[in-house]
Amino acid sequence: MVALVAAIPMSAQAETGYDAWLRYAPLPPTVLTRVGSVPRSVTLLGDSPVLRSARDEIVRGLGSMHASTIATGTSLPRTSTILLGTLDRVRPVVPAAPAAAELAPDGFWLGTATARGQAVLVVAGRNERGVLYGAFALLQRIALGEDVSRLNERQEPAAPIRWVNHWDNLDGTIERGYAGRSIFFENGRVQEDLSRVRDYGRLLASVGVNGLTVNNVNANALVITDGFIPQLARIADVLRPWGVSLSVSIDFSSPRRIGGLDTFDPLDARVAAFWKDRVDALYRAIPDLGGIVLKADSEGRLGPSAYNRTHADAANVIARALAPHGGVIFYRGFVYDNLMDWRDPKNDRARAAYDNFHPLDGKFDANAVVQIKHGPIDFQVREPASPLFGALRNTNQAIELQITQEYLGQQRHVCFLVPMWKAVLDFDMQATSTSPGTPVRDLVSGRTFNRPVGGFVGVSNVGRDTNWLGHDLAMANLYGFGRLAWNPTTSARTIATDWTTLTFGHDPQVVETVTSILLDSWPAYERYTGPLGAGTLTDIIRVHYGPGIESSERNGWGQWHRANGQGIGMDRTIATGTGFTAQYIPLVGAQYESTASTPDELLLFFHHVPYTHVLHSGKTVIQHIYDSHYQGAQEAADFVKRWRRLDRLIDRQRYASVLARLEYQAGHAVVWRDAINNWFLWLSDIADANGLAGRFPGRIEAESMARERYANTPVVPWETASAGQAMTCEPGETCSARHRYQGPAGTFDVAVQFFDENDGASRFTLFTGDRVIESWVADGEFGSPSPNGHTSTRHTVRGVRLSPDDELRVQVTTDGMESGALDYIEITASP
Amino acid sequence: MVALVAAIPMSAQAETGYDAWLRYAPLPPTVLTRVGSVPRSVTLLGDSPVLRSARDEIVRGLGSMHASTIATGTSLPRTSTILLGTLDRVRPVVPAAPAAAELAPDGFWLGTATARGQAVLVVAGRNERGVLYGAFALLQRIALGEDVSRLNERQEPAAPIRWVNHWDNLDGTIERGYAGRSIFFENGRVQEDLSRVRDYGRLLASVGVNGLTVNNVNANALVITDGFIPQLARIADVLRPWGVSLSVSIDFSSPRRIGGLDTFDPLDARVAAFWKDRVDALYRAIPDLGGIVLKADSEGRLGPSAYNRTHADAANVIARALAPHGGVIFYRGFVYDNLMDWRDPKNDRARAAYDNFHPLDGKFDANAVVQIKHGPIDFQVREPASPLFGALRNTNQAIELQITQEYLGQQRHVCFLVPMWKAVLDFDMQATSTSPGTPVRDLVSGRTFNRPVGGFVGVSNVGRDTNWLGHDLAMANLYGFGRLAWNPTTSARTIATDWTTLTFGHDPQVVETVTSILLDSWPAYERYTGPLGAGTLTDIIRVHYGPGIESSERNGWGQWHRANGQGIGMDRTIATGTGFTAQYIPLVGAQYESTASTPDELLLFFHHVPYTHVLHSGKTVIQHIYDSHYQGAQEAADFVKRWRRLDRLIDRQRYASVLARLEYQAGHAVVWRDAINNWFLWLSDIADANGLAGRFPGRIEAESMARERYANTPVVPWETASAGQAMTCEPGETCSARHRYQGPAGTFDVAVQFFDENDGASRFTLFTGDRVIESWVADGEFGSPSPNGHTSTRHTVRGVRLSPDDELRVQVTTDGMESGALDYIEITASP
Repeated sequence: MVALVAAIPMSAQAETGYDAWLRYAPLPPTVLTRVGSVPRSVTLLGDSPVLRSARDEIVRGLGSMHASTIATGTSLPRTSTILLGTLDRVRPVVPAAPAAAELAPDGFWLGTATARGQAVLVVAGRNERGVLYGAFALLQRIALGEDVSRLNERQEPAAPIRWVNHWDNLDGTIERGYAGRSIFFENGRVQEDLSRVRDYGRLLASVGVNGLTVNNVNANALVITDGFIPQLARIADVLRPWGVSLSVSIDFSSPRRIGGLDTFDPLDARVAAFWKDRVDALYRAIPDLGGIVLKADSEGRLGPSAYNRTHADAANVIARALAPHGGVIFYRGFVYDNLMDWRDPKNDRARAAYDNFHPLDGKFDANAVVQIKHGPIDFQVREPASPLFGALRNTNQAIELQITQEYLGQQRHVCFLVPMWKAVLDFDMQATSTSPGTPVRDLVSGRTFNRPVGGFVGVSNVGRDTNWLGHDLAMANLYGFGRLAWNPTTSARTIATDWTTLTFGHDPQVVETVTSILLDSWPAYERYTGPLGAGTLTDIIRVHYGPGIESSERNGWGQWHRANGQGIGMDRTIATGTGFTAQYIPLVGAQYESTASTPDELLLFFHHVPYTHVLHSGKTVIQHIYDSHYQGAQEAADFVKRWRRLDRLIDRQRYASVLARLEYQAGHAVVWRDAINNWFLWLSDIADANGLAGRFPGRIEAESMARERYANTPVVPWETASAGQAMTCEPGETCSARHRYQGPAGTFDVAVQFFDENDGASRFTLFTGDRVIESWVADGEFGSPSPNGHTSTRHTVRGVRLSPDDELRVQVTTDGMESGALDYIEITASP
Repeated sequence: MVALVAAIPMSAQAETGYDAWLRYAPLPPTVLTRVGSVPRSVTLLGDSPVLRSARDEIVRGLGSMHASTIATGTSLPRTSTILLGTLDRVRPVVPAAPAAAELAPDGFWLGTATARGQAVLVVAGRNERGVLYGAFALLQRIALGEDVSRLNERQEPAAPIRWVNHWDNLDGTIERGYAGRSIFFENGRVQEDLSRVRDYGRLLASVGVNGLTVNNVNANALVITDGFIPQLARIADVLRPWGVSLSVSIDFSSPRRIGGLDTFDPLDARVAAFWKDRVDALYRAIPDLGGIVLKADSEGRLGPSAYNRTHADAANVIARALAPHGGVIFYRGFVYDNLMDWRDPKNDRARAAYDNFHPLDGKFDANAVVQIKHGPIDFQVREPASPLFGALRNTNQAIELQITQEYLGQQRHVCFLVPMWKAVLDFDMQATSTSPGTPVRDLVSGRTFNRPVGGFVGVSNVGRDTNWLGHDLAMANLYGFGRLAWNPTTSARTIATDWTTLTFGHDPQVVETVTSILLDSWPAYERYTGPLGAGTLTDIIRVHYGPGIESSERNGWGQWHRANGQGIGMDRTIATGTGFTAQYIPLVGAQYESTASTPDELLLFFHHVPYTHVLHSGKTVIQHIYDSHYQGAQEAADFVKRWRRLDRLIDRQRYASVLARLEYQAGHAVVWRDAINNWFLWLSDIADANGLAGRFPGRIEAESMARERYANTPVVPWETASAGQAMTCEPGETCSARHRYQGPAGTFDVAVQFFDENDGASRFTLFTGDRVIESWVADGEFGSPSPNGHTSTRHTVRGVRLSPDDELRVQVTTDGMESGALDYIEITASP
């Protein structure tokens, strides 16, 4: 049987991505050899939903990977077995196991030993969750082809908090979700079928995530009403076997909205009573509720400022209601004024978290946690570590990392975030003078200042797309978040390699290619979006996706890069700027205070410099902008080439699905490249020393083609269309643009750059003469009904034979209100 | 009676503006004395509709101004009389009259003489039109209070062509009309009631206009079908008594559209036959048809290029059809590529007219006229004279002047255009080496090169607003066009003074104030919109009204100013630019070739210079931009003050109507000032040496006010809203913004800056505390449904009493889809 299975090439098997990294694909013989002997039976000591999950997972995983049946039992058999149980149940049988007290909660021990004369492979947990995590760890080792014949290993999590947040709304939409609608909600209710929630809980457990906040931080007050709590309980019931505690986001004005009070003043006794009543009601339905998440006084959400109360007052009134139940409140540090006057050069959104929370250090109750985004702004492609991490010594903190790629390509671009997260987690805040320092990972886990609680929160936003996050490669971020939350010292390469092997198998070319694409992806994204710390340079007002340079200027939201005709960057120095650098411990702040000691990649975050400023690299800022965009876009194009070499080494479905996204990304990276470079070329009036920016050989603008019914339209912002213009077609019309090819005969790739608006599904067709070469439908959802940097899309038709005088024709038949807008075509020799 | 009339103050009489400059108001005694004795009878020699118009006008005008009855007769009476007739009828009776041959067609002689023993005041014309023009001239002299007791004066027009063009569509809309719908058309037909057309014909005749093209140059082909021609004939019938010939604009593709042909190739015999057939049909219905106007191969209109034919081919096929009837074809020189590649620094729309028509000089038939816009672009606030005027020596030409204020405030701003037109008409093109030179006025009239036909075309676009052009003061432009077409050497001051006296009476303060406002208005408009020849800096893509700096960059329409971070201006030199200056006669071109000899006001039209370039004035370009915008806006504010001093010196209705427009203009001038200055302040990063630009004392941004339901919105383009943002309100909502006043007690003017979109009529109310101070409806039509530079509008509430802690509140109740957008309020001490 094994031989037969191995004989079916990977490419013939269709995989949907639903199984993610828990595929348990049958192992090839060479791998089996490396793993060594593994017992074919499981013995579970004790019984509970979580313990049964652990046992069933071993049965499922081992049975699948070894293509054999796994026996189960509840007492030691006469043959070798995998022994599962908590340490206090295991140790009497296996004295070599550590004492429970030696391990932190959720920790586990994997060991090989002899019990009653038989070889046993022990998976023992400090608690039931530990057993479950140990089972997953063992299965992962086997799946990765590691030798499990001699094990003696203790593992414990870096921190007690390893949660995901979901920004799901009760109507089924997801704020900043890019993979379909909510798996939890629809039409104001919890869904009937929660099987996807169950399978999602399993994924989370497999990487050690132990909590899930189910609804949007911009919360609907109804979520804690008596009518809704039973529905929440159904979700908690499904997650419980996976050791995942449910938690909820709340609306701070709930006492007024749903409580019948005329106030939500946290110091009002009636308000305190309201919160106690609601929290008690929650715990009656969900005894293992993890706690509550609160976004207040930010982006229009009501908060304690309405009564001149502090964030601590707000957190503590709820903390006190939670304390008797062992619950925790997460108070989001993402508090800022979104009506800030951009004309005041001293205003700085980056200051907000520290300014709001540092004065309150020590004022929060022991079960309150300040949840701090990893950087001081909002998940931009490059930010320094938030100074607040180093400023809270007597307050619990957690780091908020964003798995959903809100500003980082929205899962249409591959962008492996682990290296970005690690840059912050490993950053030494120098909060104490001790050696070896105080990296962010130790501050947020509570280790540095011995806080009772702390940890890692990931904003996940999976959806109903079969593969959870839309892009198969994006699952590396969900996996990576769990791995880092468990052990933030794990290297990005290890995480990438492990995930790739689990997800795509052991073929060395596959592992090396996918791993390296992952590791190269964030630097590439940074290069073709916003290098040097200027921010992502996207539309920050609404869509947060394509290029939109000026939208992050002159707004109330405080996300500014201050680019003008002479230079670029936010001056955040003490000497001449906003004084933000003073929020860091002086040794750290001093580094950022001077351009000489600020690393290039953060230069424009901390300094406003002329375009001619020379970087440590020896390049000028403006030349770096040009070069990095060309380099980044080239890297994105290379991802396609690298991926295409995996044809038939990966199953057909995922190969094609990822290829389509990478092709799209390569096209959109060109949109980014050209938008940013054209804009700065215009603004600075400084030419690209390499002569690349602003020149587009092989490009034929739609405006210069012979047209039927297509009409010229300016695109806003101009830099998001080639030559600032597109050709648009009226609703219900068929329009076309023709180009007579005059180059040498040969085989070419023809890229059609069009705009895929979200208010219709227009059909595009490419002809040579009267012959249809390819036809496709523009049915993408890029968040905008207009031609712009979000909707600009490339469709490349490969291997088109062209002879001189051949006519290429792009024809569109519009649909809905979509304009069928065409930007240009580009003809390049086929590789 | 006279005494009684004089005792009624002007302000008590309501005047609608319908009578324009032909009010014939009863003359005050002092004026009557200056005029001297005028006969109270009119004797008309001969009879025709035009002659009867002349006689009836004298009866009407004289009777009204002298408040007496005028007798009429057809043979010399025994008393003194005003003798009307053509010279060949008059001379036998009055031998002192000149011979007809001594005067050009349409010329006239005004003389005092004795005939059969009686004093006669003779109004004798070279032709019937001449009689009519003489009658109007006599009435104007009397109305202006000039002595008519001794007259001996010949007048002849500068050119045979003195036409107006109307851009009216058959559906009743008017392209670039700002005073209501068409007086000619509605629902695809000529209107039943043409009484307004008749009265408009009278206005035209009074200033010597002898032709009218009734429909849009972007012509509907149906206009020359058998079904439509009889309708045109009805208009011609109404205009004929005023000596105004009708003409029509045609669609060059008519042979295909309405002629049943498969071609419109001008060299195809079937096409020539089509045109002959249609022209014959037109002349059968309208024997005195003036001719045809044609816009071809421009802005999407089909033309001869479809068959690789020339503009001369196109003009001549129609000219040949017209010639037997004495008709003329006007071929518009406004031909350019509206899909021009802005990235090519050698591309230049300004070159288009010359490049298209200069090679064809001498190829046009004798009854074809090339109709040339006064500048090489398109009616911008400042352009040099079109070089084509100097380049056509063997081709008839006419100058196209635009009375409708398309780019010049759309009759919401006062902008007296005569000084601008004169700057071009008086410009010496140095087309020959003769002295005293070849001013444009002599080139277009045909005088310089002895062309058989030529002259002046004004784009008028009056509408159904009672006062014809919307703004009472805009009528000075229609009047001024006629005066200049008749005699382009007339000074702007004379025209302004005459028009003011005719329109508002003899009060010296009124005459001086209105005349000076008129003369100051174009310079002011230039200062607060686009100084130094950069173009109007408006939205050139659609609305052509409010500030929209970047819309005139990076478009296919070729109207570019090339502003970037370092400098501004179009380099049109031979040495380094587009070579446009080579289109001028070398002596003229040489002046523009160098920055040293280019006048400041055209610097940026011809040169790209750094912001720090020093003007002849001694200022830098950037400082000039800042200063001129402050100066211009201040001048607009002063117009209001100056006008207010005329309260009770002008009739209430026109006083109030003009005041409302001037108040609006003053507010919109601030929008212009701030938009342009803020944008260049950002772009150049060079501060205003006077510290004005970018600082707004007394301004309270809506974003910084306490708000109910109002939500923050970025405004596009950002520079058209203060701080780049506005507060908007949902449809059907009532929203408000509050400000607690903290200054000293006193009386203040409160300016509310809001956006008056065209998709609703929202109600704004200003409160102090609970008291309504003023309420108004935003029902303006500024061509846009969004908050931007077109819709930004100021409502100033004067004399508001404020004490510390008083709350000012702006409340809006939205209507339709209008957003009730609020920008800011500004509190200034009442004067």
